Amino acid sequence: MSTPFPAKPRIAIIGTGALGCYYGALLVKAGLDVHFLVRSGRAAVMARGIRIKLPTERIHVRKVQVYGSAAEIGPCDLVIVAIKATANAELKNLLPPLLGPETMVLTLQNGLGVEEPVANIAGAHRVLGAICYIGCTRTAPGVVHCSFPGLMTIGKFGKPASERTQALAALWRRVGVKCTALDNLEAQRWHKLVWNVPFNGLAIIAGGLTTDLLLADEGLRTLARRLMEEIVEAAAKFGHDIPRSFVDLQFERTAKMGAYRPSSLIDFEEGREVELEEIWGEPVRRAKAVGVSVARLEMLYWLIKRMLAARKLPKRKK
Amino acid sequence: MSTPFPAKPRIAIIGTGALGCYYGALLVKAGLDVHFLVRSGRAAVMARGIRIKLPTERIHVRKVQVYGSAAEIGPCDLVIVAIKATANAELKNLLPPLLGPETMVLTLQNGLGVEEPVANIAGAHRVLGAICYIGCTRTAPGVVHCSFPGLMTIGKFGKPASERTQALAALWRRVGVKCTALDNLEAQRWHKLVWNVPFNGLAIIAGGLTTDLLLADEGLRTLARRLMEEIVEAAAKFGHDIPRSFVDLQFERTAKMGAYRPSSLIDFEEGREVELEEIWGEPVRRAKAVGVSVARLEMLYWLIKRMLAARKLPKRKK
Repeated sequence: MSTPFPAKPRIAIIGTGALGCYYGALLVKAGLDVHFLVRSGRAAVMARGIRIKLPTERIHVRKVQVYGSAAEIGPCDLVIVAIKATANAELKNLLPPLLGPETMVLTLQNGLGVEEPVANIAGAHRVLGAICYIGCTRTAPGVVHCSFPGLMTIGKFGKPASERTQALAALWRRVGVKCTALDNLEAQRWHKLVWNVPFNGLAIIAGGLTTDLLLADEGLRTLARRLMEEIVEAAAKFGHDIPRSFVDLQFERTAKMGAYRPSSLIDFEEGREVELEEIWGEPVRRAKAVGVSVARLEMLYWLIKRMLAARKLPKRKK
Repeated sequence: MSTPFPAKPRIAIIGTGALGCYYGALLVKAGLDVHFLVRSGRAAVMARGIRIKLPTERIHVRKVQVYGSAAEIGPCDLVIVAIKATANAELKNLLPPLLGPETMVLTLQNGLGVEEPVANIAGAHRVLGAICYIGCTRTAPGVVHCSFPGLMTIGKFGKPASERTQALAALWRRVGVKCTALDNLEAQRWHKLVWNVPFNGLAIIAGGLTTDLLLADEGLRTLARRLMEEIVEAAAKFGHDIPRSFVDLQFERTAKMGAYRPSSLIDFEEGREVELEEIWGEPVRRAKAVGVSVARLEMLYWLIKRMLAARKLPKRKK
């Protein structure tokens, strides 16, 4: 039996990218005890806080507790992993100082296989994953433009939602995030891939396509649907039933998004890391492992991989 | 009964791109009566002739008969179609003045469905196709760099080789082209696609890849093989058996080509038309018509199509 999740938890957020800033600012604004572990741009966040520009409002949290090392923060009730999955090798140093006996770790990362690296360090029993349906971009340290705040679903790694999972969802709702705790995290991850695989992927390999241009191109629109169908077929083999209506819904929603630049395209064009393995590589491997032919998904994976290899990445900022 | 093909035929060549210049220069050099129909760069070809730079020799034919209209040339024994398939709409004006009762028309164009437009104008009975295994590029009007002279196979459209087909092959051999007349032109076209589809296509969509970089990338190398297998499967449905050893041979030959820029990549990068429908679109349609799934080929077609649509083509020179 674990103790109930505290009403005023001590929270650490690893990473101040778009998601770290956005969710962190909401938690700070609600008066919670939030500690940001910041790798780059620390002085700016410390001096000016975090600014979130939303379609209908602006949020500015002036006073933010930022740290350069996990040891300075120490054990928390909740750790939110908001770095990119491509930086997960750093978790072995960042996570342990933040863990106490009852600490929950929530990863906001995209794609498949993102809970495993956390579980390997912190233990599977305390790992949760969030699927964030949100459109936001960090434009400068501590500054985030959010085109739609979207919603979040959370779940426990490999298990149904527990009482503590429900308490965490309630916390998110309390600070203004539409959040639901669901029993099958992996199913949710496959659902998210239905959009991410084609729109993020084709945006990169078809020459920097915004979603409106993709939808306007008959071939690519059909291709996006075929890619979604491959994902649906693979997910079904793992017992996750994604209805056809969900595929249709992706197109309806995307049509309303206008000239949206998918986050992986922004990362690609701005010389940042792209979650190649989590969004494309791991789904390919899992699908093939259960005998599902994902010819287009695999081709997309190979093409993105090549585009990334050919791109000269700027030297990583420390 | 048709009359034998004349030993010294009157020849028209439509187009002075790389192939028109190369093959035309060989015919001129052998003393044949060759008439070039030239759309652009006429003055340069008239003034300076045609220069071919080969790995082991240079050919310069100084005196070349060039014309701006087909009517000036009049009926010939042999018409060689050496314009790009993407310009085939012009054939309805260019071809008829060149045709006499016994004129043979040989198209050098790449891909599937290139004989049909000629047949529609000139009649199927006189149409032949050539498959040119050659690596050459026009670097200026009348100037061609040929990295390997390669070989040519020819065949009659929809029929086995006739005596006149054999005579034409003999003519090519006489002027220095390794040429064989084969009975199944369509089978040859499918064979040629085995190389053209992956190497020309991936070169375009994977960011301007030369063949050495493609072969060095594990994913793309596997993808090239999968694309070849789709072509082989489709060809088999049409009764054309392409052995596995032919697929292997493509990789062996390509490995020896070094940093080769496939012709479609050169066309793409230099803002020229690309034979999208002949090399990718028509094979997709034919394969699907006989129930063969060509998922990767179709995806490649859609991606190239989008890349071409997004590219700003320079205004066509008259």
